[in-house]
Amino acid sequence: MKKVLVTGASGFIGKHILPHLLGAGFEVHGTYFQHSLESLPKGKGMNWHKVNLLDRAGTDAVLEKIKATHLLHLAWYAEPGRFWDAPQNFDWLQASSGLLRAFAKNGGKRFVGAGTCAEYYWKDGKLNESSSLIKPATLYGSCKSNFLKYAEPFCKENNVSCAWGRLFWLYGPGEDERRIVPSVITSLLSGEEAQCTESTQKRDFMHVGDAARALAALLASDKEGAFNIASGQAVTLKDLISHIGKLVDKESLLNFGAKETPPGEAPLVVADISRLYHELNFRSEMNLDTGLRETISWWQRKIFS
Amino acid sequence: MKKVLVTGASGFIGKHILPHLLGAGFEVHGTYFQHSLESLPKGKGMNWHKVNLLDRAGTDAVLEKIKATHLLHLAWYAEPGRFWDAPQNFDWLQASSGLLRAFAKNGGKRFVGAGTCAEYYWKDGKLNESSSLIKPATLYGSCKSNFLKYAEPFCKENNVSCAWGRLFWLYGPGEDERRIVPSVITSLLSGEEAQCTESTQKRDFMHVGDAARALAALLASDKEGAFNIASGQAVTLKDLISHIGKLVDKESLLNFGAKETPPGEAPLVVADISRLYHELNFRSEMNLDTGLRETISWWQRKIFS
Repeated sequence: MKKVLVTGASGFIGKHILPHLLGAGFEVHGTYFQHSLESLPKGKGMNWHKVNLLDRAGTDAVLEKIKATHLLHLAWYAEPGRFWDAPQNFDWLQASSGLLRAFAKNGGKRFVGAGTCAEYYWKDGKLNESSSLIKPATLYGSCKSNFLKYAEPFCKENNVSCAWGRLFWLYGPGEDERRIVPSVITSLLSGEEAQCTESTQKRDFMHVGDAARALAALLASDKEGAFNIASGQAVTLKDLISHIGKLVDKESLLNFGAKETPPGEAPLVVADISRLYHELNFRSEMNLDTGLRETISWWQRKIFS
Repeated sequence: MKKVLVTGASGFIGKHILPHLLGAGFEVHGTYFQHSLESLPKGKGMNWHKVNLLDRAGTDAVLEKIKATHLLHLAWYAEPGRFWDAPQNFDWLQASSGLLRAFAKNGGKRFVGAGTCAEYYWKDGKLNESSSLIKPATLYGSCKSNFLKYAEPFCKENNVSCAWGRLFWLYGPGEDERRIVPSVITSLLSGEEAQCTESTQKRDFMHVGDAARALAALLASDKEGAFNIASGQAVTLKDLISHIGKLVDKESLLNFGAKETPPGEAPLVVADISRLYHELNFRSEMNLDTGLRETISWWQRKIFS
């Protein structure tokens, strides 16, 4: 019996990943803490455990009870606007290392963690898992990178197979309203001006459903090491935002240049997705147009129903 | 009244620094946890507080009670042979960030932390605070470097002046017996063979008394940022060990090549000490010959009396 423990299962990526894991025959155990149990997806094979992952004793008890064969660790501090340099990254780094030890101690065999493009040094060009420099500019990136530095040798010593999905920019239904795509959509749908920076930087955006499917495929595989989980396509924020404007027919409400671009913003951050493409044989299913339409519909239902 | 809280005050560097701080007119508060109070140095102006720094509530209480103007943070996990890649580095990273917040909250004005040469990428040539690449190869180096990444902006926002003393290799009385200099000395003094690697790598060794004096000078100054605390002189481990052999007249007990050199050992790690020399006007007082003689005498007294 394959039994997976998913941390952060009630979060943005977590919710999208559960159907894929259930579909792949996993008995799925999700942790939650801040959400109410009623708000969480239910179904055959789905089990929820309320636990504060920053509490080591409580976490150890859950791991001992479940005895999962697989661990998909998505949970982390992710408060928009604050997570980049908050000391909570240290709490999650510490908690993650304890979680991994408890998983191994209880017979765990396969670990996949959520990494980030913020582990890389952001310079022009495609970021590659093995050839690009790891030089995080933020505490979030540093702590994620530090955790991997701990996890890989620890897993090797403890016969746990270990992979790491480096997520780039995501969008899609269920994203926190304070983040860029939802904040533009909700402003425009409410008839308010969307105040943007010049938005000339290019970023790699992937639909959260594709990212969830890629992480589920990575978990089910025996591949090891870091994998960029991304579209491999760069889009300027301005094109992305303008496309949202067109789709809701509110381009006149877009105010580019209303906010200042933060200093040192890298002009281009895009993933080399060769590993994802060739080793996992993964293909994205959502292009930006379809994905944004779906996301806008989701917000329309949420706001107007 | 200048009031300094010294964490790790009962440790190798801590014990050597206390007289300098008392001499500079500080009311000195030291934390201890693993040592017994009886074993700790006493004196006018010296106060001891037993606290587990990994316990945030206990640490907060001590900081609130003392209301120190200065904080010299030396404590960290330092178990020889294990500290480089142990998950305890995550505990100390988290604890250090909480300690710094508690210090600032209680009116603290000047912070100095113990950094490490392991924050740098070890390549040939002198390592410089501003021009050398920060790319730690170990969790210890990563976590120290991460803490500084947090501490500097935090201190700036909270009007705390912040400096960071990057220590290289130290030796001297009171060092843990499992480390290189004491382990050679105690083997030879006991008439046993000292099993060494080929020991061709060059390292920067400083007497702990000099390092303590440099850290005390850094604390008393208003200089900010990272300072290498080192001799600026490279010595091959073989020359260092051979010199010990000569001083105790037991060169025949030295067995170079008995142990394998760990893979990837950098041939040369030495500090550029321009900042220490010019900005703090600091000069080392102990050369290796004098320092090793003193250290050997200390072990002779400890072993044979």
